[in-house]
Amino acid sequence: MFSRQPNDYLCPFCDWLSGNETEYKQNSDIVFQNDKVTAFISPKWWANNPGHVIVIPNRHVENLYDITDEELSEVYRIVKRVAIAIRSSYENCSGTSTRQHNEPSGNQDVWHFHTHVFPRYEDDKLYQNHDTKNFVEPRERKVYADLLKAYFRKPAGDK
Amino acid sequence: MFSRQPNDYLCPFCDWLSGNETEYKQNSDIVFQNDKVTAFISPKWWANNPGHVIVIPNRHVENLYDITDEELSEVYRIVKRVAIAIRSSYENCSGTSTRQHNEPSGNQDVWHFHTHVFPRYEDDKLYQNHDTKNFVEPRERKVYADLLKAYFRKPAGDK
Repeated sequence: MFSRQPNDYLCPFCDWLSGNETEYKQNSDIVFQNDKVTAFISPKWWANNPGHVIVIPNRHVENLYDITDEELSEVYRIVKRVAIAIRSSYENCSGTSTRQHNEPSGNQDVWHFHTHVFPRYEDDKLYQNHDTKNFVEPRERKVYADLLKAYFRKPAGDK
Repeated sequence: MFSRQPNDYLCPFCDWLSGNETEYKQNSDIVFQNDKVTAFISPKWWANNPGHVIVIPNRHVENLYDITDEELSEVYRIVKRVAIAIRSSYENCSGTSTRQHNEPSGNQDVWHFHTHVFPRYEDDKLYQNHDTKNFVEPRERKVYADLLKAYFRKPAGDK
């Protein structure tokens, strides 16, 4: 519905999940994965919010209009757990927020449904700094991935 | 978890759902409601995105950390339907986006979980315009509520 992806679109998320790592998508970025969804450190960071996470359904689906209720439910079940993990693991993090974009006017630029989960800090001005973002190297992402993986490995009683 | 609501908090969403309308919360703002969730036109609008919708669980829960998986699933099931309704009903709307905030650092300012669903327009600069917002009158909200209610009333085949 209201599709914007080109007919010959090579989806970077699907290409990665099928086994092809790139500088922008490394398996070391993955902080949680099951048979329905994958959560990973975004390769693109906003200025004051390093290490934010993207959660996607493993099946290719373009946007919110087309995702099944079951996939959407599983994406947000994991978004919630990722938000708690970020809030519990990132130094000085004092809040979280999530966002999801559909179509170019809605800020979508990868045609596979994805939800962003952000660590938030006092007066970080995430929205006002929208144009201040850049791609980061795998070694920078790994610092945050390791924090979240360590959190998810903890026994339930220690979280 | 990570609670920020005052001990004596009088929740404006719960107060409204229990029967008390105010200038900011009118029953005519409601575009969808069932026993678990309510969707309504926000009383606060961003400059280029009038008539955005807020979806809440009817039960009081402060944030993403504490909402149950079942409530979260139902909120996003309706967020999806609202996004499609907005995209189908608002003139010149060419995208949608959603966002959800936790704690003051995460831009939360009402201590009852809520997800925003925005109509998006070409080059609307929703994020860059974050400080350009204002409260609007019930009659202004009703124009958009009526569009969405008309959409939801349509037979499935006409949507």
